[in-house]
Amino acid sequence: MADLLDTLTLDELRTRTSVKWQAYPADVLPLWVAEMDVPIEPAVIDAVGDAMRRGDTGYPGGHAYADAFADFAAQRWGWTFTADDVTQAPDVITAMRALVERLSGPHDPVVVPSPVYPPFATVVERAGRRLVTTGLTPEGRLDLDDLAQTMAGLDASRAVVLLCNPHNPTGVAHTRDELARVAALAADHHATVVADEIHAPLVLPGATHVPYLTVDPRGYALISASKAWNLAGFKAALAVAGPESDDALAPDRFELGSGTSHMATIAHTAALRHGTGWLDELLAALDGRRTLVAELLAEHLPAVRHHPHQATYLAWLDCRPLGLDDPAATFRDRGRVAVLDGASFGPGGEGFVRLNTATRRDVLTEAVRRMAGAIG
Amino acid sequence: MADLLDTLTLDELRTRTSVKWQAYPADVLPLWVAEMDVPIEPAVIDAVGDAMRRGDTGYPGGHAYADAFADFAAQRWGWTFTADDVTQAPDVITAMRALVERLSGPHDPVVVPSPVYPPFATVVERAGRRLVTTGLTPEGRLDLDDLAQTMAGLDASRAVVLLCNPHNPTGVAHTRDELARVAALAADHHATVVADEIHAPLVLPGATHVPYLTVDPRGYALISASKAWNLAGFKAALAVAGPESDDALAPDRFELGSGTSHMATIAHTAALRHGTGWLDELLAALDGRRTLVAELLAEHLPAVRHHPHQATYLAWLDCRPLGLDDPAATFRDRGRVAVLDGASFGPGGEGFVRLNTATRRDVLTEAVRRMAGAIG
Ligand SMILES: Cc1ncc(COP(=O)(O)O)c(C=O)c1O
Ligand SMILES: Cc1ncc(COP(=O)(O)O)c(C=O)c1O
Repeated sequence: MADLLDTLTLDELRTRTSVKWQAYPADVLPLWVAEMDVPIEPAVIDAVGDAMRRGDTGYPGGHAYADAFADFAAQRWGWTFTADDVTQAPDVITAMRALVERLSGPHDPVVVPSPVYPPFATVVERAGRRLVTTGLTPEGRLDLDDLAQTMAGLDASRAVVLLCNPHNPTGVAHTRDELARVAALAADHHATVVADEIHAPLVLPGATHVPYLTVDPRGYALISASKAWNLAGFKAALAVAGPESDDALAPDRFELGSGTSHMATIAHTAALRHGTGWLDELLAALDGRRTLVAELLAEHLPAVRHHPHQATYLAWLDCRPLGLDDPAATFRDRGRVAVLDGASFGPGGEGFVRLNTATRRDVLTEAVRRMAGAIG
Repeated sequence: MADLLDTLTLDELRTRTSVKWQAYPADVLPLWVAEMDVPIEPAVIDAVGDAMRRGDTGYPGGHAYADAFADFAAQRWGWTFTADDVTQAPDVITAMRALVERLSGPHDPVVVPSPVYPPFATVVERAGRRLVTTGLTPEGRLDLDDLAQTMAGLDASRAVVLLCNPHNPTGVAHTRDELARVAALAADHHATVVADEIHAPLVLPGATHVPYLTVDPRGYALISASKAWNLAGFKAALAVAGPESDDALAPDRFELGSGTSHMATIAHTAALRHGTGWLDELLAALDGRRTLVAELLAEHLPAVRHHPHQATYLAWLDCRPLGLDDPAATFRDRGRVAVLDGASFGPGGEGFVRLNTATRRDVLTEAVRRMAGAIG
């Protein structure tokens, strides 16, 4: 039976004008940037269409988005917060930068477990802070011993830890124990943790999302419906202040809030209010792709090392055993498959590639076959 | 005959969830924030609906928005540029901040003719620059002698001038001569001019928009379709580098571009490609409201001083002759009409209010009557 990821044909997907489908020639299978090849949840289409017809295209008002996310979080994860704890923001990365600027001073250290979503490093640089990376384990989990050592070596009175929960690109869902250890280290070393939880609704069967603020009430969480409902083109986010935090974004609430796209909050709100059934269907389809990609790799690229992702739709492939200079370039130029170069995710990413599995079964199958052919 | 601003009923407008219609109780007529009470141009509704159905909700790709604006600018104003000169950005204010940061160093002066749209001052503050305001004439035009004196007094090797062209809140469309004088002063004093031209398509009959870059090829222009087509909820903007500028945003092009809402660029592109007829209809309606508000003021509030706006849909009312402590508060609390307090626009705005005329005739009429009643 066709699942959500098998609904749209390649011809239909190629009518999209977003970057995934436009950046490469038509003979390249684009499994790179984090867009999914799904149709949009009908309630979101309806909400946007209705707002357009009412001309509801002005500046953001109210806190419907925060309320909707709070209800979703309470039902899905047992995590409770209210709109009072929330600063609405244009997107996750803008909120992250604002938080880093409020929680630290110039040149203060910002600790980033790496490899990670590249804008984390850019945020630190743009804010004029000092980027301090720590490593991950071979399984792509937080290396807590390395983190402990890094934190002990910090020479500042204030620091920030940027956590990606779940982690992009390794697809790890951090456990409660892991998060508790992070929280304890942060407390010991005058650091505040900012957890980017944009991928939280995308934790797959077999793992559980632990909202960081349920472990560390001094921290901050960044959430958005954009990733799980494939609404990257409708950017909006929420920064949630932990109940024992200083609510560091309070002075920025007006500015960040009025800088947010009202239409995006309408789309995200509809997704959260009406799209949990769609989300569960999506997760089942993504779970299927996870199995499929593991099978395909085992059959066609057995040398590639791979720990199945617990969350996201991203497979993180250790291609070092292939002995290629630049595996992403090889797959692209010789295999006509676009994936992301692991090195762009920072230290520890060299020799890896990130493959986006949120596509049709036939596309994924053909892509792994072509990647295998490219190294032959 | 019902024009574009008379199409929607009050009950229909009150279904909007944007801030204009939600911030005040139902008995307050909201003529404050810059949203218009118009239905959206049908081609924009169609383009967004079509993109939703195709799931074209990913990250921005291509330069369709820059191309569409370049064609519009060439046809409407004879101003030519190409997508190569353009940095796509999440919104005008984000692009303005990025430019200020690239064109000046910490504590360098940024000259801002005041009163002006309040985020100009916020940008300067957030960027850690020094805000230097200059004045406007009693007619709300640039005070070029004051600007000359201000520029001569600058003690820095680099400066930025933030120009609002046309000017919000006074609704002045700067002339070619005025702009040439600004350009000459900037050149003499090592300053770069950044012209915010978001209101440019809203220059009304009787005046002409002069694109700043047609006068000063060293400068930068910030443009967007969001204001003229009432798409504030779909934020997106373009920063155009003058042909003799250093293209200072080149290093930020990727980051600002990928931070932009793809769906907003789809909406703006449709407006520019298909919405010039709609725009001309809107301008005719706004011209009518401009006449109406002048008549209403003459009849009901003759003491208020008022120079009809040449652009925008904003009437800038000098209420100082009324001798009120806080005219906006009086109109709101006693008249049940929400307008913006002129003081929030910076030095020179005290005692003024800004009234949004982009509404139904009956609403505008009732509002001015109520304002008159409030001071009785
Ligand atoms: C971990 C992570 N954070 C943030 C983002 C982007 O969020 P936004 O567009 O809201 O800044 C992504 C996008 O893939 C992501 O993977
Ligand atoms: C002069 C001016 N610049 C910028 C803006 C806002 O633009 P954006 O939302 O794209 O930052 C406005 C909104 O009214 C404005 O009047």
